[in-house]
Amino acid sequence: MENSETLLALAEAARNAASLVSSLSTGVKDAVLDQMAHELHTRRECLKEENKKDVQQAEQQGMSVSMRDRLSLSDTAINAMIKALKQVSSLKDPVGEVVRMWRRPNNLLVGKVRIPIGVIGIIYESRPNVTVDAASLCFKSGNAVILKGGKEAFRSNQALVAIMHDVLNKNGIPEAVIQLVPLVERETLYALLSLDTYIDLIIPRGGEDLIRAVVEHSKIPVIKHYKGVCHIFVDASADQAMAESIVLNAKVQRPGVCNAVETLLIHEGCAATFLPLMVSSLRAHHVEIRACGRCRTLVHDLQEATEEDWYREYLDLIISVKIVATPEEAIAHIEHYGSMHTDAIITRDYGNAQAFLQKVNSSVVLVNASTRFNDGSELGLGAEIGISTTKLHAFGPMGLEELTALKYVVYGSGQIREG
Amino acid sequence: MENSETLLALAEAARNAASLVSSLSTGVKDAVLDQMAHELHTRRECLKEENKKDVQQAEQQGMSVSMRDRLSLSDTAINAMIKALKQVSSLKDPVGEVVRMWRRPNNLLVGKVRIPIGVIGIIYESRPNVTVDAASLCFKSGNAVILKGGKEAFRSNQALVAIMHDVLNKNGIPEAVIQLVPLVERETLYALLSLDTYIDLIIPRGGEDLIRAVVEHSKIPVIKHYKGVCHIFVDASADQAMAESIVLNAKVQRPGVCNAVETLLIHEGCAATFLPLMVSSLRAHHVEIRACGRCRTLVHDLQEATEEDWYREYLDLIISVKIVATPEEAIAHIEHYGSMHTDAIITRDYGNAQAFLQKVNSSVVLVNASTRFNDGSELGLGAEIGISTTKLHAFGPMGLEELTALKYVVYGSGQIREG
Repeated sequence: MENSETLLALAEAARNAASLVSSLSTGVKDAVLDQMAHELHTRRECLKEENKKDVQQAEQQGMSVSMRDRLSLSDTAINAMIKALKQVSSLKDPVGEVVRMWRRPNNLLVGKVRIPIGVIGIIYESRPNVTVDAASLCFKSGNAVILKGGKEAFRSNQALVAIMHDVLNKNGIPEAVIQLVPLVERETLYALLSLDTYIDLIIPRGGEDLIRAVVEHSKIPVIKHYKGVCHIFVDASADQAMAESIVLNAKVQRPGVCNAVETLLIHEGCAATFLPLMVSSLRAHHVEIRACGRCRTLVHDLQEATEEDWYREYLDLIISVKIVATPEEAIAHIEHYGSMHTDAIITRDYGNAQAFLQKVNSSVVLVNASTRFNDGSELGLGAEIGISTTKLHAFGPMGLEELTALKYVVYGSGQIREG
Repeated sequence: MENSETLLALAEAARNAASLVSSLSTGVKDAVLDQMAHELHTRRECLKEENKKDVQQAEQQGMSVSMRDRLSLSDTAINAMIKALKQVSSLKDPVGEVVRMWRRPNNLLVGKVRIPIGVIGIIYESRPNVTVDAASLCFKSGNAVILKGGKEAFRSNQALVAIMHDVLNKNGIPEAVIQLVPLVERETLYALLSLDTYIDLIIPRGGEDLIRAVVEHSKIPVIKHYKGVCHIFVDASADQAMAESIVLNAKVQRPGVCNAVETLLIHEGCAATFLPLMVSSLRAHHVEIRACGRCRTLVHDLQEATEEDWYREYLDLIISVKIVATPEEAIAHIEHYGSMHTDAIITRDYGNAQAFLQKVNSSVVLVNASTRFNDGSELGLGAEIGISTTKLHAFGPMGLEELTALKYVVYGSGQIREG
């Protein structure tokens, strides 16, 4: 069978399975997720075996150590997947929730009810844990899912999906509810992105290049974020010890993630004391600093930031630093150079805090807290399938609710429309 | 200036104005809308003058009488626009609403706050009232709007926008908040649909051809419905007088609209009595009936429906009628032939009502009420900018809330992330 025919058959099967998975009871879904967690534990040796082949091949092909780390399924990584499955099982089922209900003057009772979206395509790169995370979130929210992982992780993904299929089979649920796309070239993947009759939503997870390619070629709605150029603005009135601790956390705890801070904006009113303090603290953690001209008059040996640097998501131990004259200048900088991902103010000033929260329209805006909190679990959604910086449908971390839609239900007693 | 440069300048101006309109107070916005209503009344003669030129040109170009009716701005039509402006002014401002707020174990206070989407493009056909409706809804919800109306109504739309601009000017608000696209060919319009850096959302309103062309060419997210193939299923237990009244209302009150019924499904348990009753009632209202084979054994002179008919949105005094053996068959028919727009069941059976509401995943699902109630005003949203049959972002009638997004705000006290 041709690749594009395979994809079409796969998408049709997903569409057909969507109606079934949408009507599974919470009890059945939770039992299936718990059994998947159990099977993952039982079959971990065979899983590690398959993963080893992926890792060995990656090694032969010269993949970097850090990339191979992401690919590798250690016991810790498998335990994390098991924990994630159990956690999704414990989350509240969003399907069927009546969000609101009201009565009209003509006595019609109108409600909004949560339903699954239908068929969701997840396109991701080398990390095999996404396979289990995405499948479990889509399953719990009553959606059929089509998984397209990276070719480096193909054997690992196959092994994971085989385990999930066995559990589905045991429970009499069609395998088409969770499907893995066979290895295809990028051109064939684009064919998948044109199947808008069968697939309702695409969520790409990975580098900016992958995401741009998906958006460019998709006829299906895409929810995505390209990058996280996150800012922290340290206001004149900030508690400087708090500011230091938050900036450090946001930069060095996990520099390679999208909610790490990339640019530090400092109010001129506190720069003379805060900048030297922060510079020495960052340097102690091996962070490279790229600074504006004003910074360099305060701390002479700082490297100069280029115009380009203000747009950059370093994903590394590098930070841009700029002194601003007012909170308004900080907000304007964020609007111009930011990516609507995550931005924070550190302040003791009530008015500046409120103005920042109101005027900065990023998906998550924080006062006196680390940008690293832009995360589904941290904000209380239980888990997340990704972060959206598109304002439509979902903005910020996407949990189970964001994998659903709301339909209107109307209870009448014979009403007809007059005008 | 080239057309595509004009469009780019226009889109840039909208993006720049979006931030301003997003922060206008409710009082200012409502005052502006009330003044627009007043100006529309004061300047109605000059408006009718401009509209007359559009109508005369349409007449010369051989436009049908019904199309010219839609184009024509009678006093009744102008009064309706004035009323709509006042109504939008009276609606609750969605911007700034704190939808939910919760506290995390680490004492972070997390909330979701409603913000405008940004810049919205409305692409529509000949009805000039859309100009005022769309502009007022986008303005009240804090969005900048780009209006692209039909060329038949260009002078009328220009006159309407000129009135709105005068009011904006008087209030010191930039005109770029509400802009009308100058006359351009379709190819140039497609250039507008590629400006995803400046425009956040496109809402096309019009025939299926226009909407498909927009979806095909847009890089910007589009919220739309292609068509409304709405069904009414009359269950065996239905109150037949109620069923007759609802079917008649849904078919004949305004046959040319998307929430009019197109297909009637009748349970075999009541078909012998209900079908002849309904046929004579529909015929008395000049409705042409296209029926399945089983119907034709009960009422011999019915025309046979083709397979194609079950997919059709007649938008006319025509209805397809089919007898089904079970509610499940009705639901399966709706899933196969329907358009996820509006579907109703008429029944006295509690279980069948609940099953229909649960299993039919159309944007509006009704029990014992006319499909004509799928409308923003009728369902209590106050007004609507359109109806979505895409499950993402909005599903069903879209009011002010659906023209907004939700951002996360986080109030901290120095929290950093541990793991």
